[in-house]
Amino acid sequence: MRGSIATDEATLRAYSIDRSGVEPDGVPVAVVWPEDTGQVQAAVRWAREHGVSVVPRGAGTGLAGSATAGSGSLVVCLERMNKVLEVSADDRLAVVQPGILNDELNAVLHKDGLWWPPDPASKAISTVGGNIAANAGGFLCAKYGVTQQWVLGLTVVLADGRVVSMGRRTVKGVSGYDITSMLIGSEGTLGIIVECVLKVRPLQSAERATLVAVCDSAVDAAAAASAVTAANLQPAMMELLDEVTSAAVVGHLVATDETFVDPTEGKPASLLLVQTDGLGAAAELAQVHDAVAGFARHVRVAQSDAETEALIGMRRAVFPAIERMGGSVLVEDIAVPRTRMAEAFTRMREIERKYGVTLPSAAHAGDGNMHPVFVFEPVAGETGLDAVPAHVWEAADEVFTVALEMGGTLTGEHGVGLLKKRFLPEELGEDQTELQQQLRKVFDPDGIMNPGKVLD
Amino acid sequence: MRGSIATDEATLRAYSIDRSGVEPDGVPVAVVWPEDTGQVQAAVRWAREHGVSVVPRGAGTGLAGSATAGSGSLVVCLERMNKVLEVSADDRLAVVQPGILNDELNAVLHKDGLWWPPDPASKAISTVGGNIAANAGGFLCAKYGVTQQWVLGLTVVLADGRVVSMGRRTVKGVSGYDITSMLIGSEGTLGIIVECVLKVRPLQSAERATLVAVCDSAVDAAAAASAVTAANLQPAMMELLDEVTSAAVVGHLVATDETFVDPTEGKPASLLLVQTDGLGAAAELAQVHDAVAGFARHVRVAQSDAETEALIGMRRAVFPAIERMGGSVLVEDIAVPRTRMAEAFTRMREIERKYGVTLPSAAHAGDGNMHPVFVFEPVAGETGLDAVPAHVWEAADEVFTVALEMGGTLTGEHGVGLLKKRFLPEELGEDQTELQQQLRKVFDPDGIMNPGKVLD
Repeated sequence: MRGSIATDEATLRAYSIDRSGVEPDGVPVAVVWPEDTGQVQAAVRWAREHGVSVVPRGAGTGLAGSATAGSGSLVVCLERMNKVLEVSADDRLAVVQPGILNDELNAVLHKDGLWWPPDPASKAISTVGGNIAANAGGFLCAKYGVTQQWVLGLTVVLADGRVVSMGRRTVKGVSGYDITSMLIGSEGTLGIIVECVLKVRPLQSAERATLVAVCDSAVDAAAAASAVTAANLQPAMMELLDEVTSAAVVGHLVATDETFVDPTEGKPASLLLVQTDGLGAAAELAQVHDAVAGFARHVRVAQSDAETEALIGMRRAVFPAIERMGGSVLVEDIAVPRTRMAEAFTRMREIERKYGVTLPSAAHAGDGNMHPVFVFEPVAGETGLDAVPAHVWEAADEVFTVALEMGGTLTGEHGVGLLKKRFLPEELGEDQTELQQQLRKVFDPDGIMNPGKVLD
Repeated sequence: MRGSIATDEATLRAYSIDRSGVEPDGVPVAVVWPEDTGQVQAAVRWAREHGVSVVPRGAGTGLAGSATAGSGSLVVCLERMNKVLEVSADDRLAVVQPGILNDELNAVLHKDGLWWPPDPASKAISTVGGNIAANAGGFLCAKYGVTQQWVLGLTVVLADGRVVSMGRRTVKGVSGYDITSMLIGSEGTLGIIVECVLKVRPLQSAERATLVAVCDSAVDAAAAASAVTAANLQPAMMELLDEVTSAAVVGHLVATDETFVDPTEGKPASLLLVQTDGLGAAAELAQVHDAVAGFARHVRVAQSDAETEALIGMRRAVFPAIERMGGSVLVEDIAVPRTRMAEAFTRMREIERKYGVTLPSAAHAGDGNMHPVFVFEPVAGETGLDAVPAHVWEAADEVFTVALEMGGTLTGEHGVGLLKKRFLPEELGEDQTELQQQLRKVFDPDGIMNPGKVLD
């Protein structure tokens, strides 16, 4: 096998984990960095021959544990397969290798006035292949869709080393089963993505209009968000910060940004940040204003680019601000039908009281995707998830239960990996779980592709 | 088994065929019209016990033969399961039974200012379940997407009679493999869709602007269409009529519509009809005008609603006009990368000369989906596809070959069914064909679901 390989302890340890906090049992046998499809095939075949499992990896930014690699595994890291192979403005597509970073790809596309819309918060540091393997979301999904809508075709190395190109280069096509969509969000369990035909679109309009609704509670802010959707408006971005999160963000920005002007005017509040775009942005924002006004203490419309940046900057500051609260954090990722969001916030407050936990939440309110974040004192002497106290796990279990009770999902955009695997059969039901296990087995009869992740 | 059933010869014959022209070997053993999921399960279980295969059917408007039912089959017709179970403006979703017609659903949604965008030409007579089973396209796909983008979840009766609910009610979600997308476009071979959770959106803007570019040839019109895409514009509709099609349409409308004003001014031409929508419709059309002007003999911008209707009416008149040319017709459905469309029209002209056939084409030029239509004298004494002469079949084979050579697909929106099955392995490749066959077997180990369709 050509290509680069590492077997030193420090590298193995670094590539055994992702950003989930999961600590695997030991380290992989090696990390390889293939530079072409043939090298990926060689790696998979070597692993198969030697009874070693394969863990595909992009930049390792995943939050669910899908890229963790324990003993007896080979990490196949795609970060050196990072070329843009083709950009066609006329065909509205780009062909790329999986290891390119999302922001790097978009920098190339922007030169042609094009854009690949998936925008996970990690986009500066996460790979396109990883975005696809996780079906990544982001801020703009309610209007611009999740990753799945922006992939036309994939070339994949299967568990037996064969290469299959699925999907197509055309916008339409119904020839055979859509297994491309099955690979999207499969978290490295069905094959290794080695080439991606991406659907691209013209750049997002530079015309933007932005407001913040300052509400008494997250329940009010969620009701305001529902009112926007019910009024048939379609903001590009609609982000909700609950009371605890808003206070943390304000505190953080007051401490770190001398130009920051606090829209809450120092009073506890939940914030709904809304941005419209396109030729009708200002007119649409006026309608948003009408929809949210009845639920808000006051509404502030950004009057300048600087003010827009400051408001959107509040959303971007959520995780730094929460980390500043002290202790460790565990980020959840439930999604509920948009109409149930207000109720979901009420339930989060109940969970806080019942388990004595601190659980600030931010939400992509346009699509009902909530990120409750447990903030806790780590268990002494432990690291990673072992440092999460038992009562926090119990509270986390109840967060999942709430999501499923409301007709929602365990994971809106982070994936199942190891962290949510235990709950997946509850969401899928027994029959679908069995069906999905059997389908996985077709792709990987011997169970060498990222075993133990997503489904048993 | 409760529910309605028919076994009389006339009904069996009527329900043995769809609109593909395929004539099956004999008639089904019975047609049943279940009224709920339990009755669908009962029908499937009865078929399984009696060694009979199952052919799911909506309105029978399919063009690929997926709903044809020969001897030894049971037709499960979903047309009586046609209820709207839920419409939620706040959650932007609708839950419906599969047998509702597309237009009927949209009439219900429009009352709430909502819209389910899939718009196959058959939408007045085709069912939502059928649209999903075929992943139907239409005029608006380049801007508004195909059916797959507008389905959140499905409830399906499997071949063993079990019921599985897949997908979700939330916009985002990455819990488990996306098997919902696999069912979409599966043409009744993986299970019977009994309930659909549809993603809906606000109604298409009533602001429209429309033009027609009158070009010397389809090659010029295709180049004009490419120029629109390359200019990063996104019309709601961009339809191309080649020279023969335009002449047929003009002839037909002159004969049938006394108010019709011919935009070609009586000279042979290929037409590119472009409609923009939304708040910036007029401004965007002006940019379209700039993009196409260099490729057109002249460009006419609709100055009134009546003129808009007249221009769009030319596209709607394509199939009636071609049928008026005399003889029988065979409609193809290839899609090619948008940049290859001009070349594809040249190849269609070559095929006309080589095989001595008449092959007018219309295209959804915004997404490269072309409908070449063979017009021919039927073989004496034969009906259906048996009446298609050998040289027309040979020419049709070459149409498919051209599509695949250009990196396109056999079928953009009509499906594989029986008509294109022979060519599918060539498009998918040997390894993917085998993979898809194995995946089908997981859903249907005994091969009772619509056997012989799509894949062997």
